[in-house]
Amino acid sequence: MLNLQKPLTAVIMAGGRGERFWPKSRTACPKQFLSLTDDSETLLQKTVNRIRGLAAPECIYIVTNKEYMPLVRAQLPEIPEQNLLSEPVARNTAPCIALAAAVIAKRHGSDAVMTVLPADHLVRHEALCADVLCRAASAAAESSAMFTIGITPAYAETGYGYIAFSRADHMPLGVYRVDSFKEKPDSETAREYVESGKYLWNSGMFVWQVQTYLDALQTHLPKAAEIAAEISAACDTPDFDAVVAEQFPKMPAISVDFGILEKAERLYTIPGSFGWDDVGSWPALRRVAKTDTNGNYRSGDIITVGTRDCVISGKNKLIAAIGLEHIIIVDTDDALLVCDADSAQRIKKVTDILQEQGRGELL
Amino acid sequence: MLNLQKPLTAVIMAGGRGERFWPKSRTACPKQFLSLTDDSETLLQKTVNRIRGLAAPECIYIVTNKEYMPLVRAQLPEIPEQNLLSEPVARNTAPCIALAAAVIAKRHGSDAVMTVLPADHLVRHEALCADVLCRAASAAAESSAMFTIGITPAYAETGYGYIAFSRADHMPLGVYRVDSFKEKPDSETAREYVESGKYLWNSGMFVWQVQTYLDALQTHLPKAAEIAAEISAACDTPDFDAVVAEQFPKMPAISVDFGILEKAERLYTIPGSFGWDDVGSWPALRRVAKTDTNGNYRSGDIITVGTRDCVISGKNKLIAAIGLEHIIIVDTDDALLVCDADSAQRIKKVTDILQEQGRGELL
Repeated sequence: MLNLQKPLTAVIMAGGRGERFWPKSRTACPKQFLSLTDDSETLLQKTVNRIRGLAAPECIYIVTNKEYMPLVRAQLPEIPEQNLLSEPVARNTAPCIALAAAVIAKRHGSDAVMTVLPADHLVRHEALCADVLCRAASAAAESSAMFTIGITPAYAETGYGYIAFSRADHMPLGVYRVDSFKEKPDSETAREYVESGKYLWNSGMFVWQVQTYLDALQTHLPKAAEIAAEISAACDTPDFDAVVAEQFPKMPAISVDFGILEKAERLYTIPGSFGWDDVGSWPALRRVAKTDTNGNYRSGDIITVGTRDCVISGKNKLIAAIGLEHIIIVDTDDALLVCDADSAQRIKKVTDILQEQGRGELL
Repeated sequence: MLNLQKPLTAVIMAGGRGERFWPKSRTACPKQFLSLTDDSETLLQKTVNRIRGLAAPECIYIVTNKEYMPLVRAQLPEIPEQNLLSEPVARNTAPCIALAAAVIAKRHGSDAVMTVLPADHLVRHEALCADVLCRAASAAAESSAMFTIGITPAYAETGYGYIAFSRADHMPLGVYRVDSFKEKPDSETAREYVESGKYLWNSGMFVWQVQTYLDALQTHLPKAAEIAAEISAACDTPDFDAVVAEQFPKMPAISVDFGILEKAERLYTIPGSFGWDDVGSWPALRRVAKTDTNGNYRSGDIITVGTRDCVISGKNKLIAAIGLEHIIIVDTDDALLVCDADSAQRIKKVTDILQEQGRGELL
């Protein structure tokens, strides 16, 4: 299916903290290592399987925080140990991708095409997603531009960033120019975006040649480019771990969107529609997982009476929900969350309080 | 304080199932044996203390279901064993009081005055309550009428029955005639009742001479009167338990309100105002117990964010409540209830489902 001159490489960013899924997601085992939708596979495993038809295990890289390496090893035994890259500290996505690019440049050559995928999203139609990634990889192999996967909006979501796009000359059919990025809009703006047909959701999936990314780093984050060069030189030498430990923390903590893409000149998007969802918070489970006839997501031993549009996640304990609407209930062994769905973003406030109280065992 | 010719007797009805306080109240340990408001005393212990200034332990009788006798013994060690009367089956309040009246008639004489108190109510101003009971006992000692304690309504409650009352001739000051009983009203009717000044709440506390009650039984529930006579004759003989076991179940299952009081001719009420509450359901805890500045009742390890007018009852597990209003959360070891406060009466639906599912261990 994919016919590049070199094998495709993939970078899976798996260092997130998953705080918005507290109390099920914990610092010690965040969202990407869980199966939020009750399948047997975790979100990380799903992400690897997403790219497995396009990239061999030795071309798949996982970047994560060092404390999560045991989880990654346990969940992905097929990925070679040397492809598991550990960040000594969290520095957001631009440095995360720089670390992977540095290693891939050394091992696969700087003209290798890399796909970058977040580890904690869900895709309903995996085959359609693979097709779009495949087209993006082909385009990237022929060009030193950067490519981002855009998602045809299914509704006026306020929780996503949007991409304004327009027709591109000198590009294959189905590849569009990115005109600008838009922050998460209010609901009226979101409605306008969707109705206009001129905006896509920003999926956070990217494809480019390694050198293209390193060049962009050089232009927009020169300090990061310098460190990436040092890391690349040390790759597969006995110094590698020490260099990463010393240099990586000096990278500027910035996202690839803010640090690179918003400033990039040759940025294109390939729109796809494959049931993508970033599963950004508990209420999203009602979109991505099976619900009962009253629109309730339910996992565990649950009795509902006059209850609709709720997310209820428990384990063995019986949960009885009565007369509720639009409420999130998440029961774990040591913490219970009950939250209005519209207040799900305030979960952070609770974890902040626990932090202040020195109750890290609950985080 | 109380100066009767004979010592006052008291009957505490402690056989309730407390189903509206599921999942904290269980079949094996209902509401009256719990301390709902976090004090050290249970509702039953509070009820005994309520009457202790007026009645000696040997004059206080507890009537309950036989399966609760161990709980009663454990919680009330000062009450003599022979004063703990066990119902072989639940037959509602008229037979419950008849059983006690039969025993008291034999031991204390049929001219003894008996006060009847539910075991699962709360009183904020215990001394004021005792004063009213004292006045009722004095009136009952001088008269063969029946007396019920009415409560001056504090607001337009729809969860209580009401008593229409009017001035009584030939009775001490502060004693009024009961004109009629009114079922739990809708909210508009409740408002009318309270504004008119002509209605009291029906507290379920009664005072009368034992013979007066036995006579009323004879008139309105003759079968019950006949059985009560047999029980009275067997009282303090070796046959007592056998007679109760055989005869009590034959009593008609009916409340004292429906079976006797609504038909009684000489029924009076003594209005009181002493912070009485029947604590009929979880939302009532907000009325009777301490709440935080946002009106939340909280018991346990709780963090609230943007949450008001809720009832939150847990144990050791952290409960985080976010963006909630008017919600009941009750966490126990094996069952969790999350319920809109306006739907609290539907808890019965859940316990019915559990019954159908054969999950009695959760009831």
